[in-house]
Amino acid sequence: MSDIIQPRVLKGFRDFLPDAEMERRDLAERLEKVFRLFGFVPIDTPALEYAEILLGKGGGETDKQVYRFKDHGDRDVALRFDLTVPFARFMAEHAGELYLPFKRYHIAKVWRGENTQRGRYREFTQCDFDVVGTDCASADFETIQVIADSLRALGVEDFRIRLNHRGVFNRFLSAAGASEAAPGILRAVDKLEKAGAGEVRAQLSAAAGDGTADRVLDFIRKESDNSQTLDKITRAAGGVNPDSERLGELLGCADAAGIADRIDLDPSITRGLDYYTGVVFETSLEALPEIGSVCSGGRYNDLASLYTRQRLPGVGAAIGLDRLLAALESLGRSKRRNGNTRVLIFNLEQGFLPRYWRLAGELRSAGIACEVYPENRKLSQQFAYAEKKSVPFGIFLGAAESARGVLSVKNLATREAREYGSVREAAADLSEG
Amino acid sequence: MSDIIQPRVLKGFRDFLPDAEMERRDLAERLEKVFRLFGFVPIDTPALEYAEILLGKGGGETDKQVYRFKDHGDRDVALRFDLTVPFARFMAEHAGELYLPFKRYHIAKVWRGENTQRGRYREFTQCDFDVVGTDCASADFETIQVIADSLRALGVEDFRIRLNHRGVFNRFLSAAGASEAAPGILRAVDKLEKAGAGEVRAQLSAAAGDGTADRVLDFIRKESDNSQTLDKITRAAGGVNPDSERLGELLGCADAAGIADRIDLDPSITRGLDYYTGVVFETSLEALPEIGSVCSGGRYNDLASLYTRQRLPGVGAAIGLDRLLAALESLGRSKRRNGNTRVLIFNLEQGFLPRYWRLAGELRSAGIACEVYPENRKLSQQFAYAEKKSVPFGIFLGAAESARGVLSVKNLATREAREYGSVREAAADLSEG
Repeated sequence: MSDIIQPRVLKGFRDFLPDAEMERRDLAERLEKVFRLFGFVPIDTPALEYAEILLGKGGGETDKQVYRFKDHGDRDVALRFDLTVPFARFMAEHAGELYLPFKRYHIAKVWRGENTQRGRYREFTQCDFDVVGTDCASADFETIQVIADSLRALGVEDFRIRLNHRGVFNRFLSAAGASEAAPGILRAVDKLEKAGAGEVRAQLSAAAGDGTADRVLDFIRKESDNSQTLDKITRAAGGVNPDSERLGELLGCADAAGIADRIDLDPSITRGLDYYTGVVFETSLEALPEIGSVCSGGRYNDLASLYTRQRLPGVGAAIGLDRLLAALESLGRSKRRNGNTRVLIFNLEQGFLPRYWRLAGELRSAGIACEVYPENRKLSQQFAYAEKKSVPFGIFLGAAESARGVLSVKNLATREAREYGSVREAAADLSEG
Repeated sequence: MSDIIQPRVLKGFRDFLPDAEMERRDLAERLEKVFRLFGFVPIDTPALEYAEILLGKGGGETDKQVYRFKDHGDRDVALRFDLTVPFARFMAEHAGELYLPFKRYHIAKVWRGENTQRGRYREFTQCDFDVVGTDCASADFETIQVIADSLRALGVEDFRIRLNHRGVFNRFLSAAGASEAAPGILRAVDKLEKAGAGEVRAQLSAAAGDGTADRVLDFIRKESDNSQTLDKITRAAGGVNPDSERLGELLGCADAAGIADRIDLDPSITRGLDYYTGVVFETSLEALPEIGSVCSGGRYNDLASLYTRQRLPGVGAAIGLDRLLAALESLGRSKRRNGNTRVLIFNLEQGFLPRYWRLAGELRSAGIACEVYPENRKLSQQFAYAEKKSVPFGIFLGAAESARGVLSVKNLATREAREYGSVREAAADLSEG
């Protein structure tokens, strides 16, 4: 018997047991419901694509993390490492079959051969949503509203969406005569949360001199409210301009929609160097600032320039499903349980199996999730099963109950029992809510 | 501009555009609802596993179809090609954290580098459900009942579940003195549907002689009803035995549960040679016999013997999601549409954006999926967008409506319009059902 293969998964990969998987599906379902209320539609793309599509002709930095290999036809293929690149390819390929603006969401697995020492997984779920084909305030605001409604749908109220505009930042740098030092300045500002103000000042000084460092630190500081912050950065950017007007429009929409108190105009948010060209946002949970942003995104100039000459501006965000799950758990807001069975029909007489199955069918027709314990085992074993699956009620129908024409329903937590003359009456009491 | 990369997917792989993806998700959701009504719980496993786990130490036939490669750590890894092998590994690994009987479902992608000429895909979705850790009639029947309820949940009533028992077949072969010819006989019987009776007779004669061929053909013929078929095969198997009794129990449960008219006891069903040891079943749609079985399965002796010494008998089935989707489509029962947005708020005044977004929020609070057309474009463009997404209603709120304090709601199909004095009244009329 030494030929048993040790059952194990690859490092950085995980099984999802029922409690975790139910939680994950519940979360995805709630998000999906929100997306659809806004008219976003789902798409899916292959897990495996041509490496050239995913990595561009050159390859590059991401390369090392990508699962890439030769398939049976000697094609150079790779597993997707995000949902943005496949979406860009998708839009370029299907533009003719679609319509613009196109609003899609995509919840799916991605794979990265990252170093697992930092607590990262090599397989994880991404949840992206984007509005493509329009460069307007409405789509920017929609993204913010979807983030807010998504978190509320998960029972999270204590969130803050931090908003900024890359264009205003660039105008400020230009007005300050610091455009050439932009990369170093952005890199320094990006570290504000992690490295602290002192370290950022030092880096800014090194990158652009003491005077500019002071002006940048003044620029990125939030004022007492959003309109004061907007006034300040507008002035610093050389006066009213389309980008500051865009921020004003978004704050106006937030006000009208009743979510202004969740929005922080925060000039220190830049979201890295390359991709975003307009608004950018991050979302933090007030109770868990240390986990960082649970939903980030922004506006980009051109989604699919690698694959098409059609210009596709867009705005979107990605929700970190795994991070959000962990957050909900540490906030005590996850509802992990081993099942959602409402009633276990105890197996008291093996010969009653057909009756148990008829009874189960009647309960299911009433929308009640129920199970028949399959074998006529000791009651203690059947109770243990119910407990393991957190089943709240048991139905007992043995020879004695049958002779008296009743069903006995027991609350498995309180052990209270009640008899019913018909399945219909029992079902009415067993229905949830 | 010659450096554009051609946007394309690998042969055998597919994008799912919104209409197809919504349909697929709707189908999976309905199935999931049924599984949960029976107390099945979801699990998930990694897409990528050690090749040794997926293929066994030897490798073997499946090998050639498997996407297998060396990862960054030079590990021999492969993409899962079904959900059964990972489930076996999962049960062996997590037995201590679980409970028995364990009822799981798993809906996920699998990958096979098959020949695409036969219309096969290299990436497709499997939907498996199993009851593991018990060898009893109740679990066998549960599988049958789940198949029946799943198809009904999809609006399919004209299905037949064909049932047989491998043990009864083996007993018959033994009684007929044909045990040694079993592999050849099973191979021949398996071809009945495709090759026809004449060809099967020829193959049976070649494998076991003319006399045995006649007895086999008699054995696998259905009689006028299930109980007569059961009587015949019981006699042919040498009289009443635990396997024929099992079939009797299942027919009794089917009778009690009201699905007896959907079950055909069909002694010609064998489901290949190796895996199954007890009941086996296939499901066909009466309107589309040519597509073959949309849901097949059976009972097996021991799920995870490759990875553990714990014996895990079980029973389960797999629903071919892609095949079922194709079937629903050709039956005209699919509901493909480009979105589920109920109302489009037309953008008549760019300055009204905050009002549009407040209005949209009020409608969504009432559970109405709605969109704001993001830009103040020509009405014809906005109408075209609504049509492309099959949006049934439009709301018009421009300067004129605003001055009169009303909303105009238009049925976009009939072009009938109606004015409302409040969002609440409009929402009440716009709610579905």
